[in-house]
Parts: sequence; C-alpha cells; structure tokens
Amino acid sequence: MNLKDYVKTIPDFPKEGIMFKDITPLIANGAAFRYATKQLADYALERDADVIVGPDARGFIMGTPVATLLGLGFIPVRKPGKLPRETHTETYDLEYGENALSIHKDDIKTGQRVVIIDDLLATGGTIEATIKLVEKSGGNVVGIGFLIELASLKGRHRIRNYPIHSLLVY
Amino acid sequence: MNLKDYVKTIPDFPKEGIMFKDITPLIANGAAFRYATKQLADYALERDADVIVGPDARGFIMGTPVATLLGLGFIPVRKPGKLPRETHTETYDLEYGENALSIHKDDIKTGQRVVIIDDLLATGGTIEATIKLVEKSGGNVVGIGFLIELASLKGRHRIRNYPIHSLLVY
Repeated sequence: MNLKDYVKTIPDFPKEGIMFKDITPLIANGAAFRYATKQLADYALERDADVIVGPDARGFIMGTPVATLLGLGFIPVRKPGKLPRETHTETYDLEYGENALSIHKDDIKTGQRVVIIDDLLATGGTIEATIKLVEKSGGNVVGIGFLIELASLKGRHRIRNYPIHSLLVY
Repeated sequence: MNLKDYVKTIPDFPKEGIMFKDITPLIANGAAFRYATKQLADYALERDADVIVGPDARGFIMGTPVATLLGLGFIPVRKPGKLPRETHTETYDLEYGENALSIHKDDIKTGQRVVIIDDLLATGGTIEATIKLVEKSGGNVVGIGFLIELASLKGRHRIRNYPIHSLLVY
C-alpha cells in the first residue's frame, strides 16, 4: 500500500507559501489508516514504549490508535488552558506562527519509556516542545514516530539526539 | 473494570460552577483506555458503522482508536480554519461559551452509516452541531457513543431522535 496516494498537498494553507499536507483522505480510508497506525505501533513496540505521548490535535489522531493497538496508555500534550490539573508549559515557534503546549505534571512516571507520535515533522518546534515537557515530567523519550516528514525543513536536525521514524518523507 | 475509578472530577474548571470530568487518568492507563475504546468499538460494530466521526479534540482521542480497532476510516470535525479544503460549518452553544465546528464537504459519501464518538455528552451542543454537519454532508447518523454522559444536563433530550450509548453516566 502506498500511503502517499492518500495524502493531498494543498498550496498556500494556512498561509501563502505553505504546502500543507492534508492527511484527512488517509485517515478517512479504513485500510490506509489502519495500515499507518499499525506501522507506527510496530515502531513503538520495537522501541519498548511504556506509554505514548501525542500533541494536540493531530497527534491525538495518530497517537491514540497506536496506544490502543498496543494496550498502552496515552498522554495528551495540549494547548494551555485545556488540562485541568497542574501543568508544565513550553512555548515554541511553529512553521507558521507561535504556540505553547502543556502537560499534566503527574501524567508521566519517572523513568517511563515514552514514544511520541505526531502526524508531521516540519521545522520540529512542536516536537521539541513535547520532548521538553516529557523530560520535565521525568520521562525518557525513546522514540519519535511521524506519519510524514518534510525533509527540506530539516526538523530532523533539531531532534537529532533521539531515534526518529517517519512513514512518509517528502 | 470500573472505568469511573479512572475519571477525576475537577471543580470549577474551566469556569466556576463547572464540575469538569477529567478523563486523562483513564486514557493514561493502557488497560482502562483499551477497555473503553473496545466497548465503543463494539457499539459501532453493532450499529453497522461505515465510518467514525469525532469532534475536535477529545473526540479524536476516543474516536480514532474505535476506527482503528474496526478497520474503519475516521472523519474529523474541527474548529474553523483547521481543515484545508471546502467545509460546511455550524455554530453552537457550549456548556461554557460558544463555538463553531467544520467538516470537509466531501469527506462523507452520500448514504454512509456514521457513528459519532465523543468523550462527553453535556448539554449536547457539540454533538448537535456534529450531527448537522454529518447530515449536510449526506451521511446517516446511525449511532452516537460517549465515554461519559452528564445526565443532569439533559443533553440526551436534545439528540433524542438518534440511538445513544454512554459508557459512564453521572
């Protein structure tokens, strides 16, 4: 199965000059979505993950099925103001704009092996913030899995100290 | 397994007077999360779903594992400005505040049997908007599954013409 057949490139979204990768046709196709999440689950299993972490909101779409397939828990990294208990927060630069992300302080147990799952590696800002939040919480990031990597944006360099696995590279 | 053991009630979040149901302990526990998503998947199977729809963002957390467990596609209902292609949009009242949701016009095929999955039935505003978006797209809502229903808020009455299944009722 060639997953790229299910990804649409939308020019100038959400801003001029951005070639947006639209993964909605992939997740709307049962076979393609199952195939992609299964591949990411195989990666998380190989990395011996204790728990899956994913950033709001497309990281939830790819990450929670991985957790369920493996019978693992999922810990959400969310925009500030969404998590009701005490949080750590990190601000970061996006491919387009600026953002902040939070994690519950007590969601990760010290020493847990964490695999982070997200839909897209672009400049790496979201993932770098997510890594910092996991580490502040006492977790070990043992792997990072993406559906898509935009190689020209060199996000991989920014997180080069961690094992990375991307299903589709553009 | 008593799933209620994994749900925390947080008073006055995000606003005074709201008793917020925090599901993050449930999804962080692999066995509890798998058990909950499996029960919702059994319901979607019983309703003979063709596709799963879930609203941004906690509907992604509960809905995408259901889709993956069944090998079905998942269609996201998102806040405006997040979906890159042509959308239908509905505005609605929340338990706290106002919101709008969008769906890609062509994600659902005419006549498809749709099961909507979300974490919480409160006043029913989010789900009512989601139903309208599915029906505008030509889909048939054949079932709606929730992790939690807050019975005192009477959201069930608002969507009484549809089959509803809630795992936990408060």
